[in-house]
Amino acid sequence: MKPGSDPGQSFALGPGAEFDRIRGIIGALGTQAVGVGDDCALLSSGDGFVALSTDVSVEGVHFRLDWISLEEVGWRAAAAALSDLAAEGAEAVGLLAAVTVPDGAGQAELLQVMMGIGAAAEFAGGKVLGGDLSSGSAWSLAITVAGQVQHPVTRAGAVPGDGLWVTGDLGGSRAALAAWRRGTSPSANTRRRFAHPEPRITAGRWLARHGARAMLDLSDGLAGDAAHLAAASSVRLEIELERIPLAPEANREARRLAQPPQQFAAEGGEDFELLVALPSEFGDAAEFTTACGISLTQVGTVRAGNGVRFTLEGLPIQLTGFNHFG
Amino acid sequence: MKPGSDPGQSFALGPGAEFDRIRGIIGALGTQAVGVGDDCALLSSGDGFVALSTDVSVEGVHFRLDWISLEEVGWRAAAAALSDLAAEGAEAVGLLAAVTVPDGAGQAELLQVMMGIGAAAEFAGGKVLGGDLSSGSAWSLAITVAGQVQHPVTRAGAVPGDGLWVTGDLGGSRAALAAWRRGTSPSANTRRRFAHPEPRITAGRWLARHGARAMLDLSDGLAGDAAHLAAASSVRLEIELERIPLAPEANREARRLAQPPQQFAAEGGEDFELLVALPSEFGDAAEFTTACGISLTQVGTVRAGNGVRFTLEGLPIQLTGFNHFG
Repeated sequence: MKPGSDPGQSFALGPGAEFDRIRGIIGALGTQAVGVGDDCALLSSGDGFVALSTDVSVEGVHFRLDWISLEEVGWRAAAAALSDLAAEGAEAVGLLAAVTVPDGAGQAELLQVMMGIGAAAEFAGGKVLGGDLSSGSAWSLAITVAGQVQHPVTRAGAVPGDGLWVTGDLGGSRAALAAWRRGTSPSANTRRRFAHPEPRITAGRWLARHGARAMLDLSDGLAGDAAHLAAASSVRLEIELERIPLAPEANREARRLAQPPQQFAAEGGEDFELLVALPSEFGDAAEFTTACGISLTQVGTVRAGNGVRFTLEGLPIQLTGFNHFG
Repeated sequence: MKPGSDPGQSFALGPGAEFDRIRGIIGALGTQAVGVGDDCALLSSGDGFVALSTDVSVEGVHFRLDWISLEEVGWRAAAAALSDLAAEGAEAVGLLAAVTVPDGAGQAELLQVMMGIGAAAEFAGGKVLGGDLSSGSAWSLAITVAGQVQHPVTRAGAVPGDGLWVTGDLGGSRAALAAWRRGTSPSANTRRRFAHPEPRITAGRWLARHGARAMLDLSDGLAGDAAHLAAASSVRLEIELERIPLAPEANREARRLAQPPQQFAAEGGEDFELLVALPSEFGDAAEFTTACGISLTQVGTVRAGNGVRFTLEGLPIQLTGFNHFG
């Protein structure tokens, strides 16, 4: 078994403060790093690959306990990590959970977190394989997922002419956040998008089998993540925001900010939907929905060049990436 | 690829508050968990196994920045995780680093931590494969290691009659801690045992090839960890403390506590040496030292029964496990 990429090879990333940090790390590590910058690390194993990814959720940074329950904290952290397996077209095998427990919390609270983690692993078809515990000043969950995949779909395979598609709808998680931040409660459906995201493992595997050329999960929002796919594939993306499928309350929350709802949705992170480049001849969106139970919508096109061009009703529009770092 | 153990199967653990918590988690997760309680999770892959383990290091709990540098923080966290691969007899493939950066720290500080992580990965023969970043109130590093192993050595294979051996010497890490805690500086050699532990990958692989029946790494100290090996293997261990190889300053620090130095060493955690059960006919300790550059010392014997009996010069002695949780 060995890393699936050449030593020192990494995936180009789009702009953003967190990604400047990661670029700096990749540069400093030189040949000590390999394959960094895709959704998952890939290790060749037999005739396929082991896919690994790690994702950390910190109380006060990624969630607050007056918003969601401890079981949801566990589910959400695990789902965010499992989403990276979905983005690779991988099957989930299991996860390891490194959990920092704040000094005031006891075994009952820890078990609630672990039950959420276990339920998300089971939903994705995997097991809890191990973990580690520490004390600390706040809840922090570092979840590492392991999957297997025959033909991984990285961020790097999009070619000019491909269509660009998203699963499900966008802006729901941000709508929930916006409601909490102005002191009200989001609707049950909207709350669920933040507290209980469903890793798109089935969808990712379906898309991998049906010709997906490049794929990632929308954790930082379409505005930021599209740039990663463009950079890794060395292509230009043209995205027509009016085609974005909107989560139910994105409209209402966008109005409060005097923003087009499509901008609100594209700048909102943590929807954990998939962004995928498919060959231009792809026409099986209805079949996808039958198989996976969610929508698949074309939102743009892959062109030669670099960067991402967003338009709304034909006019260019500048978007800001969602940044939950710092 | 699938978990190497049956669903719901886990390894019995010795006594201690952290292990009561883990037992509770395993019970609550039921069939959602598999193989928990060994040094590594094992996934069958081709004709061998992928070994995975995660380990979290939290500022103020596992280390303090007035004791060690940021590069040492990174090395130590990675080495502690890599040590679990050594305990399985596995080869290191690489690691993923989920790093929480405190608000005041910038890119220069983060790079120091990452250089330490990268250097430890390289020392062990692996690469940095990926990671995640978050902000937070203190440094926290969750390192997940991936290795490969043909014939894993779990904690569960010791049989009555086996000899019980330890690599290297014990008590050095605790001696460094003791010096810092009373406001002085440990010697360079002793400091290194805490700040720059060397994962025993080469030693673990050598022992696996030479008949090791059960093995674990001494992260919680011989007093605590021996009980895990006894519980997982369903055997009784008889350990003669006078045979323990002592780290240079363990003597001096033990005198300050009016403790036998062997007790001081056995109750000290984070030496990251290996405890291994070998068949009674094993006689290659000198060959081990030639191959691995460290000593291998018999400290006891495996018997039928359960639990661990420590003696010092023939008299039974009660030891306390090292507990860095809580």
